[in-house]
Amino acid sequence: MPEAASRRDAPIGVFDSGVGGLTVLRALRAALPAEDFVYLGDTARLPYGSKSAQTVCRYSLQAAEVLVQRGVKMLVVACNTASSVALDALRERHARLPVVGVLEPGAAAAAAATQNGAVAVIATEGTVRGGAYPRAIESLRPGLRVVQRACPLFVALAEEGWTDGPVAEAVARRYLEPLFSVPDAPDTLLLGCTHFPALMAPIRRAVGDRVMLVDSAATTARATAEGLATLRLAKEAGIGRLRLLATDGPERFARVGALFAGESVAAEDVELVDL
Amino acid sequence: MPEAASRRDAPIGVFDSGVGGLTVLRALRAALPAEDFVYLGDTARLPYGSKSAQTVCRYSLQAAEVLVQRGVKMLVVACNTASSVALDALRERHARLPVVGVLEPGAAAAAAATQNGAVAVIATEGTVRGGAYPRAIESLRPGLRVVQRACPLFVALAEEGWTDGPVAEAVARRYLEPLFSVPDAPDTLLLGCTHFPALMAPIRRAVGDRVMLVDSAATTARATAEGLATLRLAKEAGIGRLRLLATDGPERFARVGALFAGESVAAEDVELVDL
Repeated sequence: MPEAASRRDAPIGVFDSGVGGLTVLRALRAALPAEDFVYLGDTARLPYGSKSAQTVCRYSLQAAEVLVQRGVKMLVVACNTASSVALDALRERHARLPVVGVLEPGAAAAAAATQNGAVAVIATEGTVRGGAYPRAIESLRPGLRVVQRACPLFVALAEEGWTDGPVAEAVARRYLEPLFSVPDAPDTLLLGCTHFPALMAPIRRAVGDRVMLVDSAATTARATAEGLATLRLAKEAGIGRLRLLATDGPERFARVGALFAGESVAAEDVELVDL
Repeated sequence: MPEAASRRDAPIGVFDSGVGGLTVLRALRAALPAEDFVYLGDTARLPYGSKSAQTVCRYSLQAAEVLVQRGVKMLVVACNTASSVALDALRERHARLPVVGVLEPGAAAAAAATQNGAVAVIATEGTVRGGAYPRAIESLRPGLRVVQRACPLFVALAEEGWTDGPVAEAVARRYLEPLFSVPDAPDTLLLGCTHFPALMAPIRRAVGDRVMLVDSAATTARATAEGLATLRLAKEAGIGRLRLLATDGPERFARVGALFAGESVAAEDVELVDL
């Protein structure tokens, strides 16, 4: 098999701090059904969202190394926190490997969606502190106004499976009403963490019907497909296979992961790897 | 200085997955005002509560190693999850070092408190899964009935500082009412995670006035004081000093830690260590 063809047949590597990135994987598999994927969830060290940029960067490089050793042809960073702080380091370390993050596609979708020029971003503490979303959105459409809010409890609610009901609703109201009950409130809300789409229903009720909700999963899948086409790396036919890796607790990964993957996950299909 | 005296003057090492153990440290300092303490919060890898026993054990051994290198005379494991899975391994690795966990003192307090023979334990997923509390309580008073519930959102609420108000109340009701709104409900609730005392008010309202709330902080301090006296390791006079170590994010450690420590913590007093 010539080298180019073997490279096209290689899998796409996806990594996240845990199971949240399975929402991105789901969009990737829907957009690219012929591709093989290797997904690594760094469940031993999650969450990344409350950790320093330096630590998240170090963890991201280690996670990428595992996927590179499995021969991936492209790397998708499904974690917003890692995308916002580690992308440059990953591209530098793996110069020949195309690296796609969720940040730029999400920022582009939000910048394109707003009509009134104001965008709200909700994310983890780490993502908000780093300021990567406001920078990315403002560089795409200078003059846009971006407000941010860290919503760490959304992650805990999603992990607990309490994605709707009175608790989720009270949390969503407490985080979001201050952003949207003001004059000139944003008309667009970017869900800047892979866990947040699981809480779509209470988020929608807290912000009302007029606000456009944007998440990174679909736009990241599109960016990945475009990248593959441009680089002539798309697999030509077949039905894609999936390999799941986790750094801790395959049972928990399977149980909680099913909520994000949108399909059942068997613990025996999750391979434990050490980082 | 003779060896025995220099050993008495050595600090006591305390470790936790993060800042929650500062509630235990606070009780220790109140009970033992002359002692020096070195507290290590493994903030880079928190939470331990959702991780496998094997991983928590490995992290605990690494954390203890740092404290042993600082010459501690005794080790207090302030994390319930670590106490429930790593105590044997720690005692084996450091055979000459007295090791106190929060699990046995908490279990003893709960076993002594119940009048109707039924105890409820709330803790992290890891602690509940391991079943160490029911085992410890039943071995102290055979025939007691122990029910358990994992309450991971309490950890997230405490870390967010939402320790009272409608959200905390809704979460407390959802976790606790099923345990206490049944016939023959327990009359004693053991708070089996160092984060939970921060949520005392909503927990109290959810369980009603008649349930006895027991936490490990005061009883662990008592067990530590007894251990020091028995081993003739108590420092004889002076005002104790405190050294704070964290594996990530000194600013966050200081900010969130103040809530648990009951006093302000300055980020520049927190030393960053690598594990």
